[in-house]
Amino acid sequence: MWQPANPLYLHPNPLFSFTALYLSHTMSTETPTRNRVNFATPRSFGATMKSHLKETFFPDDPFRQFRNEKSGLKKPLQYFIPIFEWLPNYSLRLFKFDLLSGITIASLAIPQGISYAKLANLPPIIGLYSSFVPPLIYAVFGNSKHLAVGTVAACSLLIANTIGEEVSHKDDPTLYLHLVFTATFFTGIFQTLLGLLRLGILVDFLSHPTITGFMGGTATLICLQQLKGIFGLKHFTTKTDVVSVLHAVFQNRDEWRWQSAVVGIIFLIFLQFTRFVRKKRPNLFWVSAIAPMVVVIVGCLFAYFAHADKHGIQIVGHLSRGLNPLSIKHLNFDSQYIPVTLKAGLITGLIALAEGVAIGRSFAIMKNEQVDGNKEMIAFGLMNIVGSFTSCYLTTGPFSKTAVNFNAGCRTAMSNVVMAICMMLTLLLLAPLFSYTPLVALSAIIMSAMLGLIDYQEIYHLFKVDKFDFLICMAGFLGVAFISMDHGLMMSIGLALVRTLLYAARPATCKLGKVQDSCVYRDTEQYPGSTSVNGVLALQLGSPVYFANSNYIRERILRWIQEEEDISNAKESVVEHVLLDLSGVTSTDTTGIETLIEISKMLQAKSIKLSIVNPRLCVMEKMIRSHFVDKIGKESIFLCIEDAIEASLFSEKRQV
Amino acid sequence: MWQPANPLYLHPNPLFSFTALYLSHTMSTETPTRNRVNFATPRSFGATMKSHLKETFFPDDPFRQFRNEKSGLKKPLQYFIPIFEWLPNYSLRLFKFDLLSGITIASLAIPQGISYAKLANLPPIIGLYSSFVPPLIYAVFGNSKHLAVGTVAACSLLIANTIGEEVSHKDDPTLYLHLVFTATFFTGIFQTLLGLLRLGILVDFLSHPTITGFMGGTATLICLQQLKGIFGLKHFTTKTDVVSVLHAVFQNRDEWRWQSAVVGIIFLIFLQFTRFVRKKRPNLFWVSAIAPMVVVIVGCLFAYFAHADKHGIQIVGHLSRGLNPLSIKHLNFDSQYIPVTLKAGLITGLIALAEGVAIGRSFAIMKNEQVDGNKEMIAFGLMNIVGSFTSCYLTTGPFSKTAVNFNAGCRTAMSNVVMAICMMLTLLLLAPLFSYTPLVALSAIIMSAMLGLIDYQEIYHLFKVDKFDFLICMAGFLGVAFISMDHGLMMSIGLALVRTLLYAARPATCKLGKVQDSCVYRDTEQYPGSTSVNGVLALQLGSPVYFANSNYIRERILRWIQEEEDISNAKESVVEHVLLDLSGVTSTDTTGIETLIEISKMLQAKSIKLSIVNPRLCVMEKMIRSHFVDKIGKESIFLCIEDAIEASLFSEKRQV
Repeated sequence: MWQPANPLYLHPNPLFSFTALYLSHTMSTETPTRNRVNFATPRSFGATMKSHLKETFFPDDPFRQFRNEKSGLKKPLQYFIPIFEWLPNYSLRLFKFDLLSGITIASLAIPQGISYAKLANLPPIIGLYSSFVPPLIYAVFGNSKHLAVGTVAACSLLIANTIGEEVSHKDDPTLYLHLVFTATFFTGIFQTLLGLLRLGILVDFLSHPTITGFMGGTATLICLQQLKGIFGLKHFTTKTDVVSVLHAVFQNRDEWRWQSAVVGIIFLIFLQFTRFVRKKRPNLFWVSAIAPMVVVIVGCLFAYFAHADKHGIQIVGHLSRGLNPLSIKHLNFDSQYIPVTLKAGLITGLIALAEGVAIGRSFAIMKNEQVDGNKEMIAFGLMNIVGSFTSCYLTTGPFSKTAVNFNAGCRTAMSNVVMAICMMLTLLLLAPLFSYTPLVALSAIIMSAMLGLIDYQEIYHLFKVDKFDFLICMAGFLGVAFISMDHGLMMSIGLALVRTLLYAARPATCKLGKVQDSCVYRDTEQYPGSTSVNGVLALQLGSPVYFANSNYIRERILRWIQEEEDISNAKESVVEHVLLDLSGVTSTDTTGIETLIEISKMLQAKSIKLSIVNPRLCVMEKMIRSHFVDKIGKESIFLCIEDAIEASLFSEKRQV
Repeated sequence: MWQPANPLYLHPNPLFSFTALYLSHTMSTETPTRNRVNFATPRSFGATMKSHLKETFFPDDPFRQFRNEKSGLKKPLQYFIPIFEWLPNYSLRLFKFDLLSGITIASLAIPQGISYAKLANLPPIIGLYSSFVPPLIYAVFGNSKHLAVGTVAACSLLIANTIGEEVSHKDDPTLYLHLVFTATFFTGIFQTLLGLLRLGILVDFLSHPTITGFMGGTATLICLQQLKGIFGLKHFTTKTDVVSVLHAVFQNRDEWRWQSAVVGIIFLIFLQFTRFVRKKRPNLFWVSAIAPMVVVIVGCLFAYFAHADKHGIQIVGHLSRGLNPLSIKHLNFDSQYIPVTLKAGLITGLIALAEGVAIGRSFAIMKNEQVDGNKEMIAFGLMNIVGSFTSCYLTTGPFSKTAVNFNAGCRTAMSNVVMAICMMLTLLLLAPLFSYTPLVALSAIIMSAMLGLIDYQEIYHLFKVDKFDFLICMAGFLGVAFISMDHGLMMSIGLALVRTLLYAARPATCKLGKVQDSCVYRDTEQYPGSTSVNGVLALQLGSPVYFANSNYIRERILRWIQEEEDISNAKESVVEHVLLDLSGVTSTDTTGIETLIEISKMLQAKSIKLSIVNPRLCVMEKMIRSHFVDKIGKESIFLCIEDAIEASLFSEKRQV
């Protein structure tokens, strides 16, 4: 039986038609030779375990580079603290690029910092603080060259929502502020832990459609909220669904100020125009990059000289000079507030990671560089921990700022250092000047930024390519807009998980046939002309064969047989052999193996012979361990489908 | 390019070595002919949607049989109400078998009914009622021939636990009883709905290891609880974890009654002995089947004549004569109790389904018959709804009773009717006689039944074959034993879901090489002697390519390339072509396609050419819709790996 392979029978070469092959068998009654299946002893538990752990947590094999090194601590130090890698080779030539891009992103950081702090119901100065310390930390530990550190709108709103449930920022602004620092601290701890434990896998479950939907929904919401600033309203809702916000805007029509609205709309048109310019002429990116700063400066001058605050245009108000005060002693671990700070910390931490890591990665791919997600998480975590000690709130790598940084030609994380120094100078010298910033200018800046975040094209692309992804995206979008931010996010993630579970519950099977004018076996639905051999039903199973699909697979195989019999209708060509091609099955469990055993029993009762084709390594191991191989017999397991078909033709002949 | 296939080049026949093939190319500079890939227009959304829905909800194609029929209502009626199918052909010959098996299971139903009702803290008579009405309903709607209807221990205890959280059975037995009826009603509605909506898919997620662990843990717990009855304790804990139960047993040592213990141990030894007999001589199954009845009768006689209740042996107490009273007016939909009854109803309903459907299926497979899971659910649901109207609590198809029924040779569901008639006679005539049943006899019966449910061998089998399944099983076992029944169950299901998600997050990839002395390409780890072509790296991706694994796949492919370069070390044989074999990938989403685009960009930057081999139908559809095919070029997509390797060898040559 186990003779060395005879090349003539190995592959049914198209030169030999099946009839010829069939005839050749009728002439000789010997069993045809065939390729050997490897039935070697299964690997030990330790070996498989190690391999699984490595694939789960260290797929990028981060320590490869140290393995053949004798250089002691230098390499690992450079690995864990990337600044040691790039700083020694840093040059004036590189610095020129980083200086320019650093100044550009600083000009964006000032208005965005103030705006997003307002969004989080925090004093505007906190937004400026948050662009000083965290970028410095990131410059030391971060491994993306293009990422610009800063606060983000979605997380700012989410923090305001979550902490606002427990403490009102109006009634007790100090406690509210301290809880935000505590949430930021938890975010930092959580992100660092995820990175250290190499749990980047968690972030993998925030899919792209989820992020698109969540961002779109949040952007819509924030846009509508800014109508408060544009119309100069004094009273507003604390709720964050579209219906409540619109209701609040139109209910307080008596508070609408036409002065404020006019100024706001002018700013908004200016900002949108600069974005349009950037789109048409990408090398004029700096026009839109400095536009927010221009709006703030013009707004300040206008407010100062026109005494705007007396004409219904509200201004930011007092901003004191000075660097970040320490806030480590203000972290509040009161058990009453722990649930809410922990919740805010974890959710925003996860979203911030997903956004930051994804953005760092996308820009790295453009330059053909690599970003290590787990190291990025540690960098984000450290910058948030230190941030929470120094009066900063949640920071990550926002898309808009990073894109500006990239376009401005930054070369290393030094651009973050430059931005931090600019912010330091601002805080020390210029802060009071910004106290005249009109709120309506901030609203216009936020609105304009948010309009860019609603990615219609991407949503349409999802609709066109994959309806389920579209559904996931819309669940996030509509959930955030009409229910609440965290529910919308959960719904979207939930749907994505349901999709994954449904996949595992219903893996696609297909019937294989020989493609016309060739000798490969493929899905008969995909290659309509393909033909099958009488009496032999070849099925390819989808992966995995798991508990969740064992009933399905059993029923589906019976249906294939039934359909085959329905088609033929004649008595003679009913199924006599079923071949299960397991080439695609990369994993199975005990229930899966039991199902195969049950299927073989069921088929036996119908006098149908079952053959298994090409079980993969870990499936084969479980087949051996559970004695399935002994039950079905080694002679029923084949390396390739051609061997299996040949053998079944042969055995049929023999019966006759 | 797209010439009709030339058989000589189609498959690298082993007669031609690769060198020969290589040479043949150097002689001709024409592009080699190849198999055609099907780039037909993607199917419409409606078509794919219909196919997905069918696979998800109707994998067994239940309506196939009506399609070519003109017989009007008869077939569908037979399909939905199976009794119309078997009753017209019923004969006296079949009835003989069903009579015998029906009487046998009735003799088991009486002691088990009383015992499990005690376990659920219900009056013993409810247990007897529950074996009268539900079997009749099942006989009409059920489609398993061997299933015997009855109450089960695990669900009884779970009901007692859940309802007991809200209402104590001691303080307000009437309310407690009514809530149990209400929970049973919800169970029925839930099961019927699952069946009608064809959501059998939910039950699929209760894996075999979960059930094994849950049953084992529950059985351990119930065994220990029975020490109360064996030792004749009067005070006991209401908690159901091993520690509390053992604590309660040993704390109340002053209440231990040696008389009770002696009787209990004798009964237990007798019952275990009959189980042993059945194991050794399977045809003596009836010995163990009637043993519980013998224990009850002997116990009653002993208690009556020895005045056992005066010697510390408690008896069941008053059992009134008469059939099930109506309880439909007692269903309690008070909003205060809805959460707890709903919870009890859903959890027990799901477990009862998983047990009942699985057991019905296993026995059907032995006889080569089929059981339709969704129809079974409807039958279970109807019997529980009607049961809740007629003073019954949760019933399903218990393993022990069904096995006895099967061994006693039942032929149709008529055996359930016979059992119901026996129960009716018992309720009308004999019920008061059982009031002398000593509690210790019931404890012995329960303990003996539970000892059979701890499936050591299965747990050891799981340990040997699949460590993760073992973990899932032990989470259920230990969780139920040491925390609580519902938490144990959730932990076990949770781990099973994590396993499924982990699978989707880390699908196995492998490097392909040509297996020695053959021409098929297989995993080089599984087939160590297999060789690869210089400069060509062929990788097989695992299924699915989803958002959850897109980062992983990108990093893993980079690592394969890196490893390839580490091995060779020489400059000349670095990777120039990467072939991704997608034969096993049955599903993808937009993120997956984007990842493929990113990979092709990354490889392009390293001047490595990417080819795709054999994308399956629904992957190809998404590739076409998202313009990936246009980006990579149709000439980079191959039907089989041999074609792709040939083409890359050819293009290499051409470059030179």
